[in-house]
Amino acid sequence: MLTYSLENTNGLSLYEYLYKCIKTDIIAGALCAGTKLPSKRAFAKNLNVSTVTIENAYSQLMAEGYIFSKPKSGYFVARLLSAGNSLQFTSRNAYNDKSIVNSSLNNYDYKEASSLLLSDKTGFHKNTPVYADFISGKNLNGNFPFTVWSKLLREVMAEQSELLLNNPPPGGIMLLRQAIAEHLYQFRGMRVSPEQIIVGAGTEYLYGLIIQLLGRDKIFAMENPGYKKISQVYLSNNVKCQYIPLDNNGVSIDLLLESKADILHISPSHHYPTGLVTPVTRRHELLEWACKNRERYIIEDDYDCEFRMVGKPIPTLQSIDNYGKVIYMNTFTKSLASTIRISYMVLPAGLINKFYEKLGFYSCTVSAFEQLTLYKFMSGGYFEKHINRMRNFYKNQRNLILASIKSSPLNNLCAIKEQDSGLHFLMTVNTTLSESKIREQAERMGIRIGFLSDFYFNSPPEAAAAITDYPSHTLVINYSGIEPEKIPHALSLLSKCIV
Amino acid sequence: MLTYSLENTNGLSLYEYLYKCIKTDIIAGALCAGTKLPSKRAFAKNLNVSTVTIENAYSQLMAEGYIFSKPKSGYFVARLLSAGNSLQFTSRNAYNDKSIVNSSLNNYDYKEASSLLLSDKTGFHKNTPVYADFISGKNLNGNFPFTVWSKLLREVMAEQSELLLNNPPPGGIMLLRQAIAEHLYQFRGMRVSPEQIIVGAGTEYLYGLIIQLLGRDKIFAMENPGYKKISQVYLSNNVKCQYIPLDNNGVSIDLLLESKADILHISPSHHYPTGLVTPVTRRHELLEWACKNRERYIIEDDYDCEFRMVGKPIPTLQSIDNYGKVIYMNTFTKSLASTIRISYMVLPAGLINKFYEKLGFYSCTVSAFEQLTLYKFMSGGYFEKHINRMRNFYKNQRNLILASIKSSPLNNLCAIKEQDSGLHFLMTVNTTLSESKIREQAERMGIRIGFLSDFYFNSPPEAAAAITDYPSHTLVINYSGIEPEKIPHALSLLSKCIV
Repeated sequence: MLTYSLENTNGLSLYEYLYKCIKTDIIAGALCAGTKLPSKRAFAKNLNVSTVTIENAYSQLMAEGYIFSKPKSGYFVARLLSAGNSLQFTSRNAYNDKSIVNSSLNNYDYKEASSLLLSDKTGFHKNTPVYADFISGKNLNGNFPFTVWSKLLREVMAEQSELLLNNPPPGGIMLLRQAIAEHLYQFRGMRVSPEQIIVGAGTEYLYGLIIQLLGRDKIFAMENPGYKKISQVYLSNNVKCQYIPLDNNGVSIDLLLESKADILHISPSHHYPTGLVTPVTRRHELLEWACKNRERYIIEDDYDCEFRMVGKPIPTLQSIDNYGKVIYMNTFTKSLASTIRISYMVLPAGLINKFYEKLGFYSCTVSAFEQLTLYKFMSGGYFEKHINRMRNFYKNQRNLILASIKSSPLNNLCAIKEQDSGLHFLMTVNTTLSESKIREQAERMGIRIGFLSDFYFNSPPEAAAAITDYPSHTLVINYSGIEPEKIPHALSLLSKCIV
Repeated sequence: MLTYSLENTNGLSLYEYLYKCIKTDIIAGALCAGTKLPSKRAFAKNLNVSTVTIENAYSQLMAEGYIFSKPKSGYFVARLLSAGNSLQFTSRNAYNDKSIVNSSLNNYDYKEASSLLLSDKTGFHKNTPVYADFISGKNLNGNFPFTVWSKLLREVMAEQSELLLNNPPPGGIMLLRQAIAEHLYQFRGMRVSPEQIIVGAGTEYLYGLIIQLLGRDKIFAMENPGYKKISQVYLSNNVKCQYIPLDNNGVSIDLLLESKADILHISPSHHYPTGLVTPVTRRHELLEWACKNRERYIIEDDYDCEFRMVGKPIPTLQSIDNYGKVIYMNTFTKSLASTIRISYMVLPAGLINKFYEKLGFYSCTVSAFEQLTLYKFMSGGYFEKHINRMRNFYKNQRNLILASIKSSPLNNLCAIKEQDSGLHFLMTVNTTLSESKIREQAERMGIRIGFLSDFYFNSPPEAAAAITDYPSHTLVINYSGIEPEKIPHALSLLSKCIV
């Protein structure tokens, strides 16, 4: 039977140590895909530990996709993907991951094979452990306000309010929408009524609602370069997409006018990934474009407005829109945790009737428990405090990264852009290495990086680059999810790949 | 200023009493739409209560949509809809509510008007208080396992597991999917691997994923009569729908073969609302239909399988499908609470690759907190206990309703069908009154009822009725959401509308 020495666990708990041992063996191939692991009881007896220890180790491995279980059969080692095809689904993830595993599954004889062959597609898999991930926009565990959230959740549960178990209106619980309206007033100077706000389980879900609301026959335009997931959602919903290049003031108005777009999906206050802020004049031009046709609308995706660092934020497009043309969107996945799926959109008044007529049959997709907890979190002032704390944290992160760059050999080879706001910046490096070579070397060292060129639609990007003048070899550095203590070493590893 | 005497609150708390007073005045029209309510502070001073009392009353009114607030302006009375157009969005709700308010909103001058005119469309509104609702399939508050759920949530929060804040695979957290696989094995004898399970925020959301997975060009067929929300979701996603009449064994196989359907969406184990159970022979015929074309699939919606009362449950279609043709779906909104948005589907192995290739970019729409809590709830054995408790509760409900009918004048006028399973039954009444007359009289007494005829697509229903032989004047009695103590009186009121 599988045996590990648990005499020296390097300060780890028994289950953590055991989990790491098994994981290492799986990654190294010492435990092959399909291998049956010992039963919990037998394994515990063999290692002379409690079954709880085994259970915890197995649970962790299962959660990460290294092993899987079959009812009444036991635990088995999952098949891992080869390097470079890891199935990590991170928010604002530049990698348009596609599995290249062409399963040899036969539809007519799958029952036995399925767990073995397919388990590798549904969990996290890594061959090289990731030391630092500059692609993911996730939050760090330690930053989540567990204590307060937990307290408020308890309150919500204890009150057993009717609101907890009565179906809320499709737009969400009024108390939460009221708190959001208040927040938008305080933080963004927006005057909206709670009735305009529609709460949903993530912006991806809300994009789907917008398509159903505005019509699948519409042509949706988005920024080029831009965040690919947006276009993935539209395309998956069989909507036509057009990609409008940026100039120095945001989406090119000339190219927008030339396009056949009906709906424009943009982030005017902080474009991802360039960080570009669309100035007021261009904003008015965009609104003017929208007003030229009854069917035109602008989706304003204000995804990270809470974390802009420096300077007075520019008013939202929504707040200068006197024509009912802007659908404003924002999310708590950036400001709280990406695993809390709460986002919202603010509909112009002219669309509210239509929303309830066409989509009023839908149930709100966010659990009432979390809606009420978030309501308390916001109305109790905790959200504001949390954002302030996070702003400071990110400011320190940014300073730490910039300092690490400065003291590394990269300093003389790179130019940094747009580091004044948001949770990422651009870094153009002067090197003769190709982007793919740099990426490959970085991944071998456990550093995940993305380039600006990953964000262009319709390759070759050169055509668009002519307008946007962002040079090649520009890395997009997301720093929200890197543990501060890892930053100096991560940058020194990164510099080794480039210099 | 608005003044109420709070000397005799009939045993209610001050805030509850105040809430009821204001609500009554709004419903009666004594407080008109648009009226500004006193500020919390001034109102509290006037009534000599604490501001918290006012705040709680306003919050409740706001949550129910009777009033709304505008940032920095105060609280206002919302406009109510006229009777019969209440915007209640209940699960398994037969009413295809459409608001008839044609707002006079002008897109170009809406900012002031919006809150006033539109607030009535986004919350709950009732003109006649509902005494008993035989349409809604909601659960009663008292039945939710608050204590256990709360304890498990606390545990989840305290453990601060990495799983809480790391993005799970798009199908959901593995631990939960494992618990669901185990549950399906124990309760339904299904052998599926966790990798086949996709967790999502409600079945409506999952229907949308299925459309994206199988293709929007497919023709979806559903049962006639049937649950209208399913067809609403498909139609809203621009998918073609066909409605296949039932015969005594479920969906008519002849009419299915005549149709152009690619995908068949059915509830073979307990059709809603007839309660019909599709026998094994017909199940095999349906599978045979599916096997005739590569593109054909059957969606098996097993929405209330936990609560079938009598007899050995028939194996699911999924478990006799050797061809990878069945997508099985189920939900926790029935078994736990409709406001906990957790549902799942089980994909045939042949579709898993396709799912991850086409839809792998989507984030799971259910919060990690609730996924982990539900995992603990299931793996700790609490779910099984809860279901057993609920089964007993519903058995008592059913007995109470049947006894109440027996002792009412209805007894000699009605025939009851399919009362052996699920959370509803059919009651055909012998009367010369029209269905609409009965419904109207019931609603005036605060009794919400639905008829089988509400569930037919493509009126006139007579054509379909010729096959299904369900007579007119057949009420669909949902009893999961009625407080037991109200049942006898509710039935006596109902009998007054008919006899």
